[in-house]
Amino acid sequence: MHVTIIGTGLMGCSLGLALKKSGHYITGVDQNETHLQEALKRGALDKTGRLEDAIREADLVALCIPVNAIISVLPKVLDNVPLHAAVMDMGSTKLDICNLADKHPRRESFVAVHPMAGVEHSGPMAAHIDMFLHARVLICNPQNSSSDALNKVLGILQEMKMKAIFMDAHDHDRQLALVSHLPQFMAYALSSMEELDRDTHRNWTELGGGGLQSSIRLGKSDANMWMPVFHQNKENLLQFLNSYMHQLLEMKRMIENNQDDDLNKLIKKANANYEKLNYRNNKPRPMVPNQGAPKVFYS
Amino acid sequence: MHVTIIGTGLMGCSLGLALKKSGHYITGVDQNETHLQEALKRGALDKTGRLEDAIREADLVALCIPVNAIISVLPKVLDNVPLHAAVMDMGSTKLDICNLADKHPRRESFVAVHPMAGVEHSGPMAAHIDMFLHARVLICNPQNSSSDALNKVLGILQEMKMKAIFMDAHDHDRQLALVSHLPQFMAYALSSMEELDRDTHRNWTELGGGGLQSSIRLGKSDANMWMPVFHQNKENLLQFLNSYMHQLLEMKRMIENNQDDDLNKLIKKANANYEKLNYRNNKPRPMVPNQGAPKVFYS
Repeated sequence: MHVTIIGTGLMGCSLGLALKKSGHYITGVDQNETHLQEALKRGALDKTGRLEDAIREADLVALCIPVNAIISVLPKVLDNVPLHAAVMDMGSTKLDICNLADKHPRRESFVAVHPMAGVEHSGPMAAHIDMFLHARVLICNPQNSSSDALNKVLGILQEMKMKAIFMDAHDHDRQLALVSHLPQFMAYALSSMEELDRDTHRNWTELGGGGLQSSIRLGKSDANMWMPVFHQNKENLLQFLNSYMHQLLEMKRMIENNQDDDLNKLIKKANANYEKLNYRNNKPRPMVPNQGAPKVFYS
Repeated sequence: MHVTIIGTGLMGCSLGLALKKSGHYITGVDQNETHLQEALKRGALDKTGRLEDAIREADLVALCIPVNAIISVLPKVLDNVPLHAAVMDMGSTKLDICNLADKHPRRESFVAVHPMAGVEHSGPMAAHIDMFLHARVLICNPQNSSSDALNKVLGILQEMKMKAIFMDAHDHDRQLALVSHLPQFMAYALSSMEELDRDTHRNWTELGGGGLQSSIRLGKSDANMWMPVFHQNKENLLQFLNSYMHQLLEMKRMIENNQDDDLNKLIKKANANYEKLNYRNNKPRPMVPNQGAPKVFYS
């Protein structure tokens, strides 16, 4: 199959590496010439191309770009893609993208995809051939895609042994706001604190243990990817953010006023919610070493 | 050396496993009879004992109990420990403990120790023989310990190849409030959110990726260990918590008012602070598999 990958950063380059390995022919498109050449050099692409040409020759177009760029590019891609071809995105928000696609006469050719994989690093040099291997993948509003398009997309996802979960785009955005966008927001707030910049002559990593490392690692993530996610999922994010800030305020009062019983009850609730999350019974995916990155957490 | 370990949970049992391996004779003491028997069964102890006897026969006493329990027990331990013996604690706060020790005539026998190792799980069944291996260890106010006591403690820490960092107890508590106690507080706030309990019929882990997992894992930690830490380090914690909440509020306003330039600047600051944390140049410790726990992050 001829796959055109638009955007050759972390996601696009990882996708290219995996799909080339399973025998597909890959054309890469990127406004960022450095990324494009790096992805080519890393063996993620068979060739590079111009947007219009690369769309017209594709059996499948994968949009691996920030969600605001998906909104800009998707109509043009659907306008120009061959009749037999499918188009998928890889964005972290789904409602605005699905709403836009719904207005297009070629809606059926589009499949809304959100792979639950990624790292805090960005760019093609952080890509990994096994980034998507065995990961879950959320597919939104599949009833609006043709079975041809859906099967084409599921086919390549299955080559990477991904586990598909079908859901409504509205539910997706609401639920991801809680489990992904809020934690990202929290990490940016922590990592951007002035005190981390001054306050001591020491290297904080000398003092911070695994707790700091796991709380702060998302602070490394790229603004170009996340700002449009926060915008597109603003209402849901703000709602959960209010809820989280309320929780912090309650806990702060409990500490200030020595309300030990209340704090103990709240921590037991946190423990219980964690247990419900059931990480124990989810077989963990292996940790995959990454270029230049000491610890990489895949979903 | 005869080492008496008071508290045979995660830390005490891990210490026992490591020290027995390097040839020491270990007596375990715990009010929790189940923990004590589990630690014995796991091979972390040579025998169990009563507090008074176990103190009197020790060359080294290690207090592996919550920081409020350290405050209760330390004077009694120093009262009864043989003249040649040393006493160390393993608590996550240091100022109150050092202040208390300073008032004791046997102050010189005490060494204030905080190993930068641990996991979110608790109890002897979560212990691991290599939990402290190659970890950093903060030693506070070493000038108030005798060189005999200090060398005895450094000796066993070096057997576990731990890297000692000496610091002032006041600085310790202030800095750990930012890099450890605040992240713990944040994780409890996130994990205890009502929405994680209802809001969807799905298992959240199906939707949440590595971001949720690393943001929430500290929510599993034991209230008995952390509540006394929050209390003893209340002033520092509240100060950094205010700062963090202010940051969240600023970011919330930026999202609400579409202040993209400001948000972008803040995220770049988060990225830059993360880089300064310099995780890349810190050789990561290997991930150690743990009983019943899918992913274990050591410091």
